[in-house]
Amino acid sequence: MGTASLGELAVRFGCTLQGDPDLRVTHVATLERADPQAVTFLANPRYRRFLAQTRAGAVVLDEKSAAECPVAALIAKNPYAMYARIAAVLHPAPPVVAGRHPSAIVDPSASIDPSASIGALAVIGARAHIGARCSVGPGCVLLDDVKLGADTRLVANVTLCTSVVIGERCLVHPGVVIGADGFGLAPSEGEWLKVPQVGGVRIGDDVEIGASTSIDRGAIDDTVIENGVKLDNQIQIGHNVRIGAHTAIAGCTGISGSTTIGARCLIAGQVGIAGHLTICDDVVVTGRSFVNSSIRKPGYYSGGITVDETTRFRKNAARFHRLDELARQVRKLAGEAPGADDAGSEDE
Amino acid sequence: MGTASLGELAVRFGCTLQGDPDLRVTHVATLERADPQAVTFLANPRYRRFLAQTRAGAVVLDEKSAAECPVAALIAKNPYAMYARIAAVLHPAPPVVAGRHPSAIVDPSASIDPSASIGALAVIGARAHIGARCSVGPGCVLLDDVKLGADTRLVANVTLCTSVVIGERCLVHPGVVIGADGFGLAPSEGEWLKVPQVGGVRIGDDVEIGASTSIDRGAIDDTVIENGVKLDNQIQIGHNVRIGAHTAIAGCTGISGSTTIGARCLIAGQVGIAGHLTICDDVVVTGRSFVNSSIRKPGYYSGGITVDETTRFRKNAARFHRLDELARQVRKLAGEAPGADDAGSEDE
Amino acid sequence: MGTASLGELAVRFGCTLQGDPDLRVTHVATLERADPQAVTFLANPRYRRFLAQTRAGAVVLDEKSAAECPVAALIAKNPYAMYARIAAVLHPAPPVVAGRHPSAIVDPSASIDPSASIGALAVIGARAHIGARCSVGPGCVLLDDVKLGADTRLVANVTLCTSVVIGERCLVHPGVVIGADGFGLAPSEGEWLKVPQVGGVRIGDDVEIGASTSIDRGAIDDTVIENGVKLDNQIQIGHNVRIGAHTAIAGCTGISGSTTIGARCLIAGQVGIAGHLTICDDVVVTGRSFVNSSIRKPGYYSGGITVDETTRFRKNAARFHRLDELARQVRKLAGEAPGADDAGSEDE
Repeated sequence: MGTASLGELAVRFGCTLQGDPDLRVTHVATLERADPQAVTFLANPRYRRFLAQTRAGAVVLDEKSAAECPVAALIAKNPYAMYARIAAVLHPAPPVVAGRHPSAIVDPSASIDPSASIGALAVIGARAHIGARCSVGPGCVLLDDVKLGADTRLVANVTLCTSVVIGERCLVHPGVVIGADGFGLAPSEGEWLKVPQVGGVRIGDDVEIGASTSIDRGAIDDTVIENGVKLDNQIQIGHNVRIGAHTAIAGCTGISGSTTIGARCLIAGQVGIAGHLTICDDVVVTGRSFVNSSIRKPGYYSGGITVDETTRFRKNAARFHRLDELARQVRKLAGEAPGADDAGSEDE
Repeated sequence: MGTASLGELAVRFGCTLQGDPDLRVTHVATLERADPQAVTFLANPRYRRFLAQTRAGAVVLDEKSAAECPVAALIAKNPYAMYARIAAVLHPAPPVVAGRHPSAIVDPSASIDPSASIGALAVIGARAHIGARCSVGPGCVLLDDVKLGADTRLVANVTLCTSVVIGERCLVHPGVVIGADGFGLAPSEGEWLKVPQVGGVRIGDDVEIGASTSIDRGAIDDTVIENGVKLDNQIQIGHNVRIGAHTAIAGCTGISGSTTIGARCLIAGQVGIAGHLTICDDVVVTGRSFVNSSIRKPGYYSGGITVDETTRFRKNAARFHRLDELARQVRKLAGEAPGADDAGSEDE
Repeated sequence: MGTASLGELAVRFGCTLQGDPDLRVTHVATLERADPQAVTFLANPRYRRFLAQTRAGAVVLDEKSAAECPVAALIAKNPYAMYARIAAVLHPAPPVVAGRHPSAIVDPSASIDPSASIGALAVIGARAHIGARCSVGPGCVLLDDVKLGADTRLVANVTLCTSVVIGERCLVHPGVVIGADGFGLAPSEGEWLKVPQVGGVRIGDDVEIGASTSIDRGAIDDTVIENGVKLDNQIQIGHNVRIGAHTAIAGCTGISGSTTIGARCLIAGQVGIAGHLTICDDVVVTGRSFVNSSIRKPGYYSGGITVDETTRFRKNAARFHRLDELARQVRKLAGEAPGADDAGSEDE
């Protein structure tokens, strides 16, 4: 845990301080539970009601809220981003302690920077290249020809298959599997022939990959995750997917093979994206949507039918299953002949 | 495998025996495949047709079915629960054999009860506290400051990150990851800043966690799973979620950050629950539902549109994508002016 | 990497060669990026536009496309299957190097074929039976009584629980968990009793199982995966599911307990199949469908509502939530009395 004075924080991150610059803070906390050594923040209006009573040392908030703040305020245009920066000072990632745990199994042909840390019972395959200050946590398995850029951390029990390349400053959480075979099958006489998967996976810099996410190797060319991509837990990324820089994807989303997603997209949780599609830059897909055609215009896209009381939902769902019939009846009532719309619906 | 006489079972669990109290049974089986040393049960009416022909030693069933039972009957109000108790006698969990496998890597600062079992190639971090009769299976990794209450079992290849606290008598299946960072990101100038995740995970007593489920650590405060919660496989639980006592959640369900679920809820498979919601006690959510607003009234909630033949489904789905237009047309046919309903739908 | 002449390939696999039989190829590539030592293929019409410019050594394609091929052509009825066979010659699976890594922990009662490979830090439990030329990769954990047929490969960090039986020539990717307890709970006085899970898992020959897929052990009888089944990543298969031969299932699909799926089915990604159902042979379920009743007729089934622009989607979804009302209004406009259909919808 770090410690800093409010004055130091204000100077370092360029925010306006309302309060005592010498007050020292040591940790972060919620508005509701903060003690006087804590910094907290107000970004979501949902939590505004806790501001008046907070006992925090300081609150990071925007100019509009500063007047209501009963304690010191660190005023920023983007309070949540400012909070993130301050929290990183007070709660830095644990330092990487250089060295190999004697129980790690490292292939003699692996090249490991002396400043890197190799944890207990990790396995490092042939010709691996582990950069400066990397941390390979306990139980990780790196098969042959893996490359990790400087300052990349694999927390624990991560599996990197043959030829996976990861950039600098990445953070990979437990249970992640990168570089397993994609789902390549050729039907042949009622059976499935395996299509050898010979591509790799290339992951850029500053990528974070959540627990138990899987990213398959390419079938022929590589699967590519560009710089600054953030992936939550339990995401499945098929072979030859390409994800553009600074796109964030929430948990349980699945992306089928050969789909390209642009830069700065935000894909929410439990979304499904079919294969061989193109999603352009700056697309937001809300939770639980099913994307099965390309999206060529930035904007917001949705598809999740929400829950209702079961009795009511089932009545409506039963009607859904006869909706085409209902529409035809309406057309008839309106005195229109069956026409373009009806035909169109059949083609979809 | 245990063994018991029907008389012993009837006395121990308070059920009525119809048949020979000295008959010994050694294992459980299905009605259809049971042999004379087996106990079986009838709870789901779907399987009633197998009762007349069963060759079981005894059948656990309710009073109504007892007359039809061709073999000994153990009569109980709740036959499935009674079966569960009897099965646990005949098929007890394997005993925990105290001791550390010599290949396990245990930090010298860890405190491990002498009655606990630490499996092959397990890793136990600094200041861990492992309670009486715990079993940490092969390949498990416990990072620093983990606590396990008495009689908790981690089957194999479980990853517990820093500061995870688990209560007594829990059962955690392989591939589970508890305490990885939540998905906390602050947008800042077209990129994402990582928001340090500093909370923990606290899991109560008698919790079961299925294979490859992940539970993230809190962003600031802890993620909390209360006593008696049962989680199936491949569930994703975001940071700062709180799940109330004796709630059960089926496989592949995802729960976004900061959502609170009440006690005794039943959440079926592949459900998605958005973040920052409150689900009250005693709510049942059926399979494949998408919950994106709070539920404040106990009851049954549904949202899964079911499958149909592709041709028919696609016609109906095409109509769905023009449903607002259809509703406006009906309103016009009915001679009503566009009104509250139309406006309302736009606001949703 | 292998190498072959076009003549050798044509003879071995029975395809027609248009071009120089002595030209040697060493690897596969895409049409777009192939160099003169590469074999590529044209199967998906989407990629036809790359044919004229390809610099490949040879292209596998069908008779219709052969005339347009600017380089050597290997002509086959099923070009993708032919490509798969050729790719397997040029990119064979790495050979299994017999022997045990000294860091592996093998129970003395295990029987391991001398031609098998046991990787670094693998754990092999009591009475295991590992067949000829099997490969158990680094970090795999096999609990007691596991059986692997000849030529089966576990890539790395695979967990096989007690009594799992796998056939010959299977390929199991990292993060897979087979044989964990199913989700068997009996409600009893507001709590859940665990129902002991005592069945096993039996997996046939030529089965491939993708990264982080989980297959639960049976409650009483076994969970069964038949020959030639192909499972993608992050699939969840509940207890007592039975999957018929040569069925393929794409990523993130969940199958609840006691459901039987027939042979030669194709289940796409993110599908959910409820428990205790029967799906007959030769059924195709398209992406994102929710199957909650049995399917008794071969054919195509769909259920995924696709994404739309958020504003439009929400209007339509709001109408969906009042669809029963709309249908009643149409019936009234049509001058029909509320009747069978309305009642029927309530029963669903």
